[in-house]
This record gives sequence, structure tokens and C-alpha cells, in this order.
Amino acid sequence: MANKTALVISAHSADFVWRCGGAIALHQSLGYNVTVVCLSYGERGESAKLWKQDGMTMEKVKSERRKEAENAARALDAHDIRFFDVGDYPLDLGPETQERMVDVIREVQPAFMMSHSKWDPYNTDHMRTTDFALTCRMIAQAWGHKPGQKVLGAPQLYLFEPHQTEQMEWKPDVFLDITPVWEKKWAAIQCMQGQEHLWNFYKNVAENRGNHFRRNSGGQAGGRDCKYAEGFQSIFPRTVDEL
Amino acid sequence: MANKTALVISAHSADFVWRCGGAIALHQSLGYNVTVVCLSYGERGESAKLWKQDGMTMEKVKSERRKEAENAARALDAHDIRFFDVGDYPLDLGPETQERMVDVIREVQPAFMMSHSKWDPYNTDHMRTTDFALTCRMIAQAWGHKPGQKVLGAPQLYLFEPHQTEQMEWKPDVFLDITPVWEKKWAAIQCMQGQEHLWNFYKNVAENRGNHFRRNSGGQAGGRDCKYAEGFQSIFPRTVDEL
Amino acid sequence: MANKTALVISAHSADFVWRCGGAIALHQSLGYNVTVVCLSYGERGESAKLWKQDGMTMEKVKSERRKEAENAARALDAHDIRFFDVGDYPLDLGPETQERMVDVIREVQPAFMMSHSKWDPYNTDHMRTTDFALTCRMIAQAWGHKPGQKVLGAPQLYLFEPHQTEQMEWKPDVFLDITPVWEKKWAAIQCMQGQEHLWNFYKNVAENRGNHFRRNSGGQAGGRDCKYAEGFQSIFPRTVDEL
Amino acid sequence: MANKTALVISAHSADFVWRCGGAIALHQSLGYNVTVVCLSYGERGESAKLWKQDGMTMEKVKSERRKEAENAARALDAHDIRFFDVGDYPLDLGPETQERMVDVIREVQPAFMMSHSKWDPYNTDHMRTTDFALTCRMIAQAWGHKPGQKVLGAPQLYLFEPHQTEQMEWKPDVFLDITPVWEKKWAAIQCMQGQEHLWNFYKNVAENRGNHFRRNSGGQAGGRDCKYAEGFQSIFPRTVDEL
Amino acid sequence: MANKTALVISAHSADFVWRCGGAIALHQSLGYNVTVVCLSYGERGESAKLWKQDGMTMEKVKSERRKEAENAARALDAHDIRFFDVGDYPLDLGPETQERMVDVIREVQPAFMMSHSKWDPYNTDHMRTTDFALTCRMIAQAWGHKPGQKVLGAPQLYLFEPHQTEQMEWKPDVFLDITPVWEKKWAAIQCMQGQEHLWNFYKNVAENRGNHFRRNSGGQAGGRDCKYAEGFQSIFPRTVDEL
Amino acid sequence: MANKTALVISAHSADFVWRCGGAIALHQSLGYNVTVVCLSYGERGESAKLWKQDGMTMEKVKSERRKEAENAARALDAHDIRFFDVGDYPLDLGPETQERMVDVIREVQPAFMMSHSKWDPYNTDHMRTTDFALTCRMIAQAWGHKPGQKVLGAPQLYLFEPHQTEQMEWKPDVFLDITPVWEKKWAAIQCMQGQEHLWNFYKNVAENRGNHFRRNSGGQAGGRDCKYAEGFQSIFPRTVDEL
Repeated sequence: MANKTALVISAHSADFVWRCGGAIALHQSLGYNVTVVCLSYGERGESAKLWKQDGMTMEKVKSERRKEAENAARALDAHDIRFFDVGDYPLDLGPETQERMVDVIREVQPAFMMSHSKWDPYNTDHMRTTDFALTCRMIAQAWGHKPGQKVLGAPQLYLFEPHQTEQMEWKPDVFLDITPVWEKKWAAIQCMQGQEHLWNFYKNVAENRGNHFRRNSGGQAGGRDCKYAEGFQSIFPRTVDEL
Repeated sequence: MANKTALVISAHSADFVWRCGGAIALHQSLGYNVTVVCLSYGERGESAKLWKQDGMTMEKVKSERRKEAENAARALDAHDIRFFDVGDYPLDLGPETQERMVDVIREVQPAFMMSHSKWDPYNTDHMRTTDFALTCRMIAQAWGHKPGQKVLGAPQLYLFEPHQTEQMEWKPDVFLDITPVWEKKWAAIQCMQGQEHLWNFYKNVAENRGNHFRRNSGGQAGGRDCKYAEGFQSIFPRTVDEL
Repeated sequence: MANKTALVISAHSADFVWRCGGAIALHQSLGYNVTVVCLSYGERGESAKLWKQDGMTMEKVKSERRKEAENAARALDAHDIRFFDVGDYPLDLGPETQERMVDVIREVQPAFMMSHSKWDPYNTDHMRTTDFALTCRMIAQAWGHKPGQKVLGAPQLYLFEPHQTEQMEWKPDVFLDITPVWEKKWAAIQCMQGQEHLWNFYKNVAENRGNHFRRNSGGQAGGRDCKYAEGFQSIFPRTVDEL
Repeated sequence: MANKTALVISAHSADFVWRCGGAIALHQSLGYNVTVVCLSYGERGESAKLWKQDGMTMEKVKSERRKEAENAARALDAHDIRFFDVGDYPLDLGPETQERMVDVIREVQPAFMMSHSKWDPYNTDHMRTTDFALTCRMIAQAWGHKPGQKVLGAPQLYLFEPHQTEQMEWKPDVFLDITPVWEKKWAAIQCMQGQEHLWNFYKNVAENRGNHFRRNSGGQAGGRDCKYAEGFQSIFPRTVDEL
Repeated sequence: MANKTALVISAHSADFVWRCGGAIALHQSLGYNVTVVCLSYGERGESAKLWKQDGMTMEKVKSERRKEAENAARALDAHDIRFFDVGDYPLDLGPETQERMVDVIREVQPAFMMSHSKWDPYNTDHMRTTDFALTCRMIAQAWGHKPGQKVLGAPQLYLFEPHQTEQMEWKPDVFLDITPVWEKKWAAIQCMQGQEHLWNFYKNVAENRGNHFRRNSGGQAGGRDCKYAEGFQSIFPRTVDEL
Repeated sequence: MANKTALVISAHSADFVWRCGGAIALHQSLGYNVTVVCLSYGERGESAKLWKQDGMTMEKVKSERRKEAENAARALDAHDIRFFDVGDYPLDLGPETQERMVDVIREVQPAFMMSHSKWDPYNTDHMRTTDFALTCRMIAQAWGHKPGQKVLGAPQLYLFEPHQTEQMEWKPDVFLDITPVWEKKWAAIQCMQGQEHLWNFYKNVAENRGNHFRRNSGGQAGGRDCKYAEGFQSIFPRTVDEL
């Protein structure tokens, strides 16, 4: 039987590392094939360190960022990473990008999808990516879109953790224990040479989400000894046979 | 090994039937022991039909309502039903009721709890019950409350479906398939002789939540053939090992 | 046939003047009997000017405030004004006050009720009054509360305009043209000798709400030439035969 | 004197039936002329049943959907139905469509407009249609847009009921009694051959909104005996002469 | 040392006067250089009075509106006013306008920016301008956008007061005392010959915000004697060394 | 001239340390006198580690917790710490506690106050404390409450950071740089022997809020080199003379 699959839609090429690197590595270890789509390299907006170097060019920045992302994906055992290279700040999310994304969604047939928070006043690329993900999911579900292709079911869309959760009005409803794969996430984080100022930040996040996991799984009266976790906000309700 | 348990806190004696009768019957069928606490009989505020009869007294109303609730609990195979009889419209949720409830919570040690929506401008009994449930859950978790008793972990509090969901600002994040136990819920509903005007209403709700279940589990591309469902809103984030 | 009726629940004795004086006078002119209940005189919290006078006592403040409120009620042609005198900052809204209020609600059988905004961090008396109004409305609807009395139907609860609308999270969904009775409201406002610093403020409010009325009734393409208006937020949905 | 008019903006050709078929038939019976604009046939995204048939083509789907919508409009006595045919999943709501819609709005001069909910993560066509309706309403109000044409006043925009109200953050503030025209709505619903799985769903909705109508018009103490209703959310405040 | 600077982004050419004229004049008096960008003249949507004149043309309207805006800017001592002339109802906020705006932002290097409310169902130009301002701010911060130019820091974006604050879900978190420059704002307001119906409205607003300033700075126990104020909502958190 | 003052209202005796220890130490270093009121010792609900020891009694727990809090206050150079000892889980916030608190507020005459988040489903003591703080602030402003005492002005109420910010719907609007006093906060944290599991958690919080400070003060283009920060949410709008 085929592996389960998941799909991460990352506005810039480093987002998937900080925000759901643990989920990627963990689900790979559970037998999922996780595909990561980086819409851009973050070449204009998230590469300050590179641009401060002499003689930097757009091509060098992209190439550097691509390498970092590929290394990180490898560190996380990601099944697949794809670069749409649609530019950043802002992203070009027009009809052509939409079509490419719908094709990938239908190809992957993900059990769940991941993307950014719904609101981000610091970075409109992020919130437009989530809006775009919802539209593409809808198209992938349309029986009249490229009839004959396999139509998408109803995968959850998880919003991964943004940089300033409260300003982005992001509220996690599920915490995932990533302790078993923390070393992989930490290795992936360290691939991001251009954003070293964020390494410790996201280590702290993982530790503190671990604390939240412990608290919500029982605290001092039976809480699970989770050391590192990631939080996600679900867009759609779950359907279950037991609460 | 002991059965898993669940605890339903119902402001008035019929609420548990309409709002989570399916969840009760289903979890009983899964081996849980479900305890229902009815804080009141709804004797003043939810017994219009009885009060319209000649010669009605408070005692007769309570007795009638208790019988109906016990019959319904039986129809649902509920493990246990308890009547706090603290009066209604409004409920007396003072220190004494609080102490009784904390004792029950600690005794039951529920895997999950259920109560009303956070806001209900039609029925302040409902929203105060939820507030009360949160406070009692907190006390039950305190190591210094009756030291020596078993301290509560961190059970989810599910808010069950109110009468007018949108007015109560209630948003379900999980749908439970109650098809296997629908006949039991329907039988329980019919025990509520005093509120026959609500029978068909809650049948419609169950059918339409079944539609939402189908849609959210895949719709026309793989959705589960669920006929009846119940929706719940979670207060706390979940902690998981797989998304 | 009996007149239609309305009921205003005012935390302090001046609130009904600023916030719904126009609605009172207008509905009186339409043949309603409007009853005003002042829970307190605002004797401690809203009588700064009086307290700054030498030799002031609680009784003198109350008496002064009562006279002002009675004068204002008269200026508005209010059918009836009642003073519960339960103290302010904070109000005593315990069981006894509740019982009195439920009795008044059942006696008046209002076509609509009015009270304060749901949230008010400056003045918790205000928001507790609204919460109290909802509870009393619920009790008045209970067939088992003092059986034999006439049970309340489902009157709208309008929240009248607070002092700082945005901070109180108050959003009007209906504007009432009070131009025909503006002179009465202005006269009533001037009865409030102790709060002269608010006269012009509420005149500005009435003028600007008139502008909003014009804009929402058609603006430059057919808007009604309203000069003064009041805004209200509805708690409950309306039921209509034509949109 | 000319009839009053209303305008329904429906993203896909069946939306107007489920969501406001009763309002259309009722207002026609009250002497309004109601115009329905279907932006698309829902040919790609809401025609699964047709696409599952062998040899289906886009033209056949559109033609079939158009016939169903015309039949439904006839069953509802709608004055007029127009098909913009701008494609679906996603809709093309660019400048040209905008211009066409503004022209229709100015031609119709509606007393009120209707469209979808503000948020719909399942179906971004829906929420973009509402945004589009607001923009077109604004342009139709501009004196400098095609000077000489009759400028639009300030019609209400009612948001009709979406499929999963809570997920769409839709909250009705008005219930309309559609009992007198229920048979027409039911007939219109049955015109939608391609979406038979939704017939019973929307019958349940109509019955349960009837229950909400009864409750909000007085419940057991004077509520109107409404059997079927529709709910709507208003975007703009009302302007009135009596509450 | 160079003056501090500020940047106002005004959808139509009169918005900056009503909504932040006081802030402009005050900061000029404090030594700031304030630049105003009017994206359009409001020539189609906010010039009804002009269009009602015989023989009016688009060019005349624009020219008239430009003169008014320039006069107002002069009355406020604004350092600079620029007209992008991108059309209104709707604005053209495409890539070209974006590029122009980013260039201005980088040129001005504002200590703070100002724009419209996040939501405005009456006027989608307003809310799209705010969205546009956030995107342009983001691009101006990108090191890879026109490398070599001075990169933008993190200026606050203040949302100025819309016409109907509650409908626009706008909540001020800061009140600015504009008493010292009120005469300048009043003079600027009177430059807006085409919108005389709004003069008194915004005078009332200024007075009532003065009242809010007094209340929030201490009220009757030490509040500042402010006569006129403006309110603003901040998008981003502040960073301080003392609370 | 007298020192400026501030007042922290802490539900349990450790809250002030984690949540605003930096603000206390910093403002002391700026010449403020900061008073801390601990409503309870957290003796029942926040002393799990102590209760797990053999032979523990309520008195020992309280005494231990008091010592820790006094040590922490000393480490922070707090001007004053007071213990109301009203019990916890739940707190007794009745009329007597209210009176005591109002007296303290009037005595201290704080330039600003601090308390908990508005919502906390995990710990209703926290949210009731904030509600209580608002009521006491209101009473302290009443000229008729204990006439002759100095009446309170309008101090800001800052809500300090809760344990799970997103679940508590807490959103900081100001970040305070506590780098100069971090060593004191760290020393104070280490006084909390009973809650060692939280030490690292709040160190991470301080570091990550430092990152947010840097980002919001300019990021890579001029952001301040802040290492540790605390975030606060303001209840009331500010009043300023310059933005």
C-alpha cells in the first residue's frame, strides 16, 4: 500500500524549517512522504546577511538559499522539496503559480497540508500564501478541473507557528511531540547560515512548546515527558470516531 | 485495567440528551463509563409544558423531569446520572455546589469533560455552568485541595452544541460520528415528553452534522458515509504524536 | 387596547438620559409607555461635582441626583421612573435586586428592553448591569418562576451607547432618528447639573449619529435629512416578514 | 409607482436556491422584482455528479446547470436571472466583471442586496464574491462613475446562509418567515438534480430556522407559529423611526 | 541633524485632512517633516457636490480636488504632498503603484506611517490602501529590493479614524492632543469646499476625542485640559524603556 | 518631589516574578516605588512540589511560599510586598478583599497597575483577578467612596504575560527592554524553589521577547540590541503629545 503523504507550502525557503521541521521529520519517521514546496527563496526579503556582503547578486543569493534549503530538507529526511521560484516581497501568486500548485496538490494527494498564519502585518507574503493555499485546495477538489485527474479529498490545513504568534492572531489547537526527531530539526536549523540570529529563538520555541505539551497532557499529574514540541492551528474541524 | 471515563456537566436535566446523547452512548459502547451530572431539573425554566397543566407543583415537576432524565440516561446506557438539585433560573453555583462538583470530578477522573457554550445571552445558566466547570476543573488539579485525594490531570473540556449556535458564538472543531448509536439517542430524545417541540429539531441537527462530517472527511472524493453526527468545541489544545 | 411598553435598565441615575433619552421621548410620542429603572443614583461614582462641595453627605448627593433624574424623566415624558437604590461602585446585584427586577419586567411586559454595553473596563457596574439584565430576562421567561404571573415573551435587548464606544467593543446595528424629540432630550440633558462637562459631548454624539443615519439611509443619493440620532446594538436576532 | 427591487449575487448557479430561495419567492409575492445574478454555473466546482457521467463536457455541464437554475428561478417567481459566465474555481472577478456588475446594480437600483458570507475557507469563490459585491456597491454609489446614470443609494447587503455557518463565522441577525412560500422553495430545490445530496440538508435548515424564528418572536409565550425560515446577516446598520 | 519624518498614505485627497490633519500640523510644529501621499483625488467617489454641477468633467474635478488638498496641506504646514493619481473607486494598486510607493517610503524613511482602517465595508478603497501600505512597508524593508538603497527600519503604522468607527472595527489605542494646532486643522477642513457636510462632523469628533483624552489622562482627578484630540490605532507593538 | 509609583496585583505569590519581575526591577532602578500585592500564596494550586513532600501542612506551604516571594521581591528591589492571604483555587475576592485592595490603590496612587490576562481557561483565579482589578480601580476613582481620601486618576492597567499566551487570548502591545536588570530577574526566578520546572521556560520567554523587541525597534535596519524583554497588553488607550 502507498505511503501516506503530506504537503508543506512555504512562502520563503526557510519557513518550513523553523515552523514545521519537526513535523516533517516526525511524519517521515512514521512512514509518510512529505513534500515541501518553497514558493520563493526569500531572496529579496529574508536574506539580509547575504546582501550585506560585497558583490552579492540575485543569482548568488538564490543559489545560496536553495542550497541551505536542500540541506535542511535532507536533514529532515523530507521526501521531496520543490522550488517554484516565483519571487518574493511580494510573491507572484497569479494564475500560473496557482495552476502549478494545484497540480502538485493533486499529484501528492496529501493527508494534510501546512502553511502560514491567516494574518501577518509584518509579512504579507505569509498571509497571502495561506489564502492561496485555500484557493488551490478548493480547485484541487473541483471535479471539473482537469477532469480525469484524481480529485482531492478534504485534507486538514494546519497553520504553522509564525514569528510573533500574538501579533499574527495565531492560536495553536494541537501540539505535536517532536522529541524523537529534535536532533534532526536542530541540524536543519543550523543549515540556515544566513539567519543564525533565529537559531536560538526557535530552540526556545521548541522547548517552551514542550512545556505546553506537558501541561496539556496532564501537567504534574500525568503529563507526558515531552522535551520539544511544535504547535499548529487547524482551519477545518476534525472528523472522529472517538473523542 | 479500569475503564476510561467521561463526565458531562448539564445545567438542566435535558441538556445532556439533545447536546451529547450520541457521545454518551458511543463512548459507553467503546467501553467508557460516562457520568452525567444534572445541576438542576430545569424545573423552573425548561418545563413550560408541565407548568401549563392544572395543579402543577414544583415537586411534581422535578419528579417528572427526573424520571425523564433517568429514562434518557438508561436509553443511552450512561454509566451513572446524578442530580445536584441546586435550582435553576438561576442555578446556585456557590461554594457548596463547587465542592460537590470537585469531589465528583476527582472521583470520576474523566478522560474528557463536557459542558455548555461560553456565551449564551438567552440562558445565562448555560454560560455560568461552563465557567463553573472550568473553575472546578482547576480546583480538582490543585495538589493542596484535600491533599491525599487523587489529583486531576488535564482532561479536555468539550463544549456541546447549544440551541442557536451562531448566537452563542459556538464553533465546532470536531465532529463525532454517532451513526452506530443513533437509535439510542433517538430513543433518549423521545423520553423528553415535556419538550416534544425539540425532537425534530435535534434530529435535523444530527442529520445536518452528519452532512458536515461527510464533507469534512472528504466529501464526494472519499468522505465517510456518516448519517448522524454531533459537533463539539474544544477549550484546550490537543497533544499528539501524529497529525 | 393597552399601550406598548418598553423598559430601560440604567446602572446609575443619569445613564438613561445620555444614552437613550431620545428613544424614550420618541417612543412615548409613539404611544409607548416607557419605564426607567435606575439601579443606583451614581451617588458614589458619578457625582464628583457634588462631592467637591463642602459639607456634602451621601443623603444629599442621592437626593440631588434623584431630583435631577426625575426632572430629566419628566422632560422626556417617560411614563415611569423607579429608583432601586442598591448602591453603586459597585452595584449590589444580588438575589434580592434580581427578584425586584424580574417583578418589574413581568409587570411591564416590555416590547423591548435597553441596557449597557457588554464590556466596559472603565466601569464594571455597566457591564454587570447588562449581564444582570440578561439573567433577569431569562428568569422572567421561566414558567416555573412564580407560576400564575404572566410569563415574558422574547423582547429585544438593545445596548445603548457607552461613553467610549470603541473601548467598550460596542457596535451599533440600528440608528433611530430622534430629530422630532431632540429638544426634549436636550432639555433632559440640561437637568444633569452635576455633569455639565458631558452636555456638549452628547450633543455632538447626537449630531454625528444623525450624520450616520443620513449616510446609511442613502447618503447623497436619497438619504433622509435626519439631524439627531441615537445608535443601539441588538443582542438578539429580529424576526420579520419582509427584509 | 415602480415596484421595489432586490438583487441577489450568487457565486455559482445554485447558491441562490439553497441560501435565499425563500426570500426571493417571498419578496416577489410582496411585489418586489428580484434579480438574480449567477456569476458562474459552478461548472467546475459544484457539478461533481455531472462530471462523474461518461462523456461529459464543459459545455454540457454549463447547459445543464443553466437549465436547473432557470427552472429554479421560475419556481421562485424570480423576476429575472442573469448568467455572467465568468468561470468558477476560481471566479474571474476582474475589471470587466466589475463593470458589468456595477451596471446591473445601477439598472436594478435594489432596495437590498444579498451575497455570501465574509469568510469561507472551503470555498474562496464565496468570500471573494462578497468582497466584490462591496466594491461594486461602492462604485455604483460614485457620482463620478458614468456621470448621468442614476447613482445608487445605500442598500443593505444581507449575507445569506453558508453551508457550515460556524466555520464561515456567519451570524444571522434577522430571521425571515418563509412559510407562505415554502412550497416554492422546495420545488426550486428539487430543480437542482445535480446536488440531490443537499435537498434534505436545506429542508432541515429551513425547519430549524423556523424553530429559531418561533423562539425569537416569543417562544412558548407568544412566539409566531412559523414553520420555515431563512436567516441573514446584515453588513450595515439599519435606520429606523421606531425600534 | 536631519529632521524626523512621517508619512501619511491617503486613499483619496481629503482623507488626510479629516483623519490626521492635527497629527500632521502638530508633528510639523515639533520639527518633523511630514509627507502626504494622496493615491487619488477621490474624483469619482468623493466629489458628489462637484459632479452635481453642470458641465463638470473629470479633469475639472481632479483639478479642483487637487487645489483643495494643496491648500489644506499648506494650512497644516505639511512638508510635502504628492498625488499619485491612480484613479479611485477602485484605486489601481498594482505593481507600478506599489513600486512608486516603496520608493517614497525609502526616500522619506518615516519614523511612523499612517493609513486607513483594516476593514471598511462602505469603502473598499480604504481597506485596500491599508493592506497596500503593509505590503509596501514590507518591501521597503527587504535588503534585496534595489540593493544599495537605504533599507527601511520598523516604523509604526497608525490607522487614523474612519467615518464610522464601530462599523470599521477600528479601536484607538492612543489619543494625541491637537489643541495647540486646532486652528490649523480647522482651517484645513474649511479648504474642503466640496464636502462642507463633513466640517461640523469632524469638529465634533475632535471635541469628543478631547473629552476621551481628558478621561484617559486622569478625568476629574488630574486629567489634562485637552480641548481637541485625534485617535489612532497601532498595528505593531511599541518598544520602550519605561512604561 | 515624591517618587512615581506602580502597583502589581498578583493572584498567587509567584506570578509577579515570572510575568513582570523585569518591569519591577527596571522601574525601581528608574526611581519608582513598586508595590506588589499577592492575593494568595498559591498554596493550594501552585505548590505541587511542596505537597508531594511528606507531612506537609497548609501553614508550612504558605510560610515557604511567602519566604520565596519575599526573597524574590528583594532580588527585584521591589519597594514593598503585601500578602492578602485570601486563599486560592479559588481566591476569595468578596467585598472585604475589595475594600482592602481599594485602600491600597488609593494609598499607592500608582502611575500604572499590572495584573493578569482577561481570559484564562486553565486558571480562573487569573482572570477573576483582572476583573477584580478593574472593579477596584473604578471604586478608587469614585469621589463618593470614603470622601476625603485622595481619589485615583486614570492609571494604565497592563496585563502581564500568561503561561500560554495564545490560549489566554493575550496580545502584547508594548515590549519593555529589561536587559539592564535581567540578572535581578534571573535571581528572583531562582528564588522560586518550588517551581524549578518553570525557570528555563521564563528565561526562554525573556530571550524571545528580546528578539521581538529587536524586530519591532528596527530589526536588521537599526533595531536596538535588546537581549531580554517583557511584553504587556494595555487595557486603556494612551494619551500623548507626540506619536
